[in-house]
Amino acid sequence: MLAASRRWRGEGLDIGLVPTMGALHAGHLSLIEHARRENRIVVVSVFVNPIQFGAGEDFARYPRDPDRDADLLRRAGVDAVYQPSVAVMYPPGSSTRVHVGGVGDPLEGAARPGHFEGVATVVSKLFAAVEPDRAYFGQKDAQQVAVVKRLALDLDVPVEIRVGPTVREPDGLALSSRNAYLSAEERVAAACLSSALALAASAYANGERSPEKLRKALCRRLEAEPLARVEYAEVVDPETFRPPGSLAVLAVRIGATRLIDNHDLSKEFPG
Amino acid sequence: MLAASRRWRGEGLDIGLVPTMGALHAGHLSLIEHARRENRIVVVSVFVNPIQFGAGEDFARYPRDPDRDADLLRRAGVDAVYQPSVAVMYPPGSSTRVHVGGVGDPLEGAARPGHFEGVATVVSKLFAAVEPDRAYFGQKDAQQVAVVKRLALDLDVPVEIRVGPTVREPDGLALSSRNAYLSAEERVAAACLSSALALAASAYANGERSPEKLRKALCRRLEAEPLARVEYAEVVDPETFRPPGSLAVLAVRIGATRLIDNHDLSKEFPG
Repeated sequence: MLAASRRWRGEGLDIGLVPTMGALHAGHLSLIEHARRENRIVVVSVFVNPIQFGAGEDFARYPRDPDRDADLLRRAGVDAVYQPSVAVMYPPGSSTRVHVGGVGDPLEGAARPGHFEGVATVVSKLFAAVEPDRAYFGQKDAQQVAVVKRLALDLDVPVEIRVGPTVREPDGLALSSRNAYLSAEERVAAACLSSALALAASAYANGERSPEKLRKALCRRLEAEPLARVEYAEVVDPETFRPPGSLAVLAVRIGATRLIDNHDLSKEFPG
Repeated sequence: MLAASRRWRGEGLDIGLVPTMGALHAGHLSLIEHARRENRIVVVSVFVNPIQFGAGEDFARYPRDPDRDADLLRRAGVDAVYQPSVAVMYPPGSSTRVHVGGVGDPLEGAARPGHFEGVATVVSKLFAAVEPDRAYFGQKDAQQVAVVKRLALDLDVPVEIRVGPTVREPDGLALSSRNAYLSAEERVAAACLSSALALAASAYANGERSPEKLRKALCRRLEAEPLARVEYAEVVDPETFRPPGSLAVLAVRIGATRLIDNHDLSKEFPG
């Protein structure tokens, strides 16, 4: 991978990297198009990273569809797919971890201990292997974006972090490979996340600024959904992920499936 | 720094990096010559890295002599000196740390909590800023070498780690910027480290293989020196830094000054 990348750089071509865990959906494809517009070369990595899953999480059953992914990537016209094996990424004896303190600690960091350390470590490895000029992440994983930006800044990694908007289903549900886990009934219920964000954005537009009242508006909608169990619902600063701020962030279980979503309340909710 | 480095790479020139904390001595100069022989471009970094010093350690009084360093580097014919400020390396809000588990845990890792995390973090940053083909470290800091090798391997950093032999005074004392802390009396006493290593190597040459007996040979010589206080003296594997093995590693206080040294007992002690 690095040899190809350095050859491209030597030819004066700039390189965009879209890191994915496969099970590609329109959100990924939109990031790939975004990368295509800004770079001569587009590399997509496909790697379900075991170390960002906690014990008891869904690593083993995370959706995998390599044939469909390969087909989508071919049709999207990417220049290279970097698809290392777990054995290559974490051979016996590997023991280095990258930890992003501060922004990586609350919310997702607290709910999923070790998750962001796994993300920061694999992203460091992908950046080292591809040496991209730009890397593309989805706004759906807002705290991940903040962690990766912090990482690149702190470790002097010369990669511009670019963020693509969350792609949503017609009813507002944010696209996620994990939506595949939802039963038909849960799929309907899952719209409560985006619906709660839209309600809070509307309260914000009407002048509400109290983090506590905005939080309550989110929870009221989520708790009205019998299949939903709120893990967190906060309104935080988009750089520190601590209150106060205008970024509403949610983690909600719909049945056994854990979904996250977020929205900057200072902006109109789409759709 | 990176722009210069990428320009050189674009011209097909390979780059050697010698990371230092300044206060240069013949050990550093020997690494620079080593780098010169193997690379078209030689970059020396000079940075006293605050985060690899523990509370109560000697960060504030670590020897600094920028004029003398600049003069030595000029005469050594290096192509670039990378000398970032602390404010540039660790601006407010920086919070990412690189941790090398396993080999970084015992001995120096145990005696100086956070030390190797500081080393691994700054080395990651230097590698990102310089993108060298090869980086040069002294065998004197043997465990640091093992940590940096592990780091490069684990994070897919495409840098070859090269190790230069320990340079010694005529009486065997390993060169170290910290030798400047020693009083005249302590300077004489400090020869006990290399003398202990030489005795253990001689025992090894005579067939002694018991880690415990080799350890005792080391301690016997060190404890004969009234000004010396042994922090650790072990015979370990040079990759894991756990027994058994043939690498003798020492940390000894001579008065208030903490010195380290090591020797592969399967080889004759020099001099």
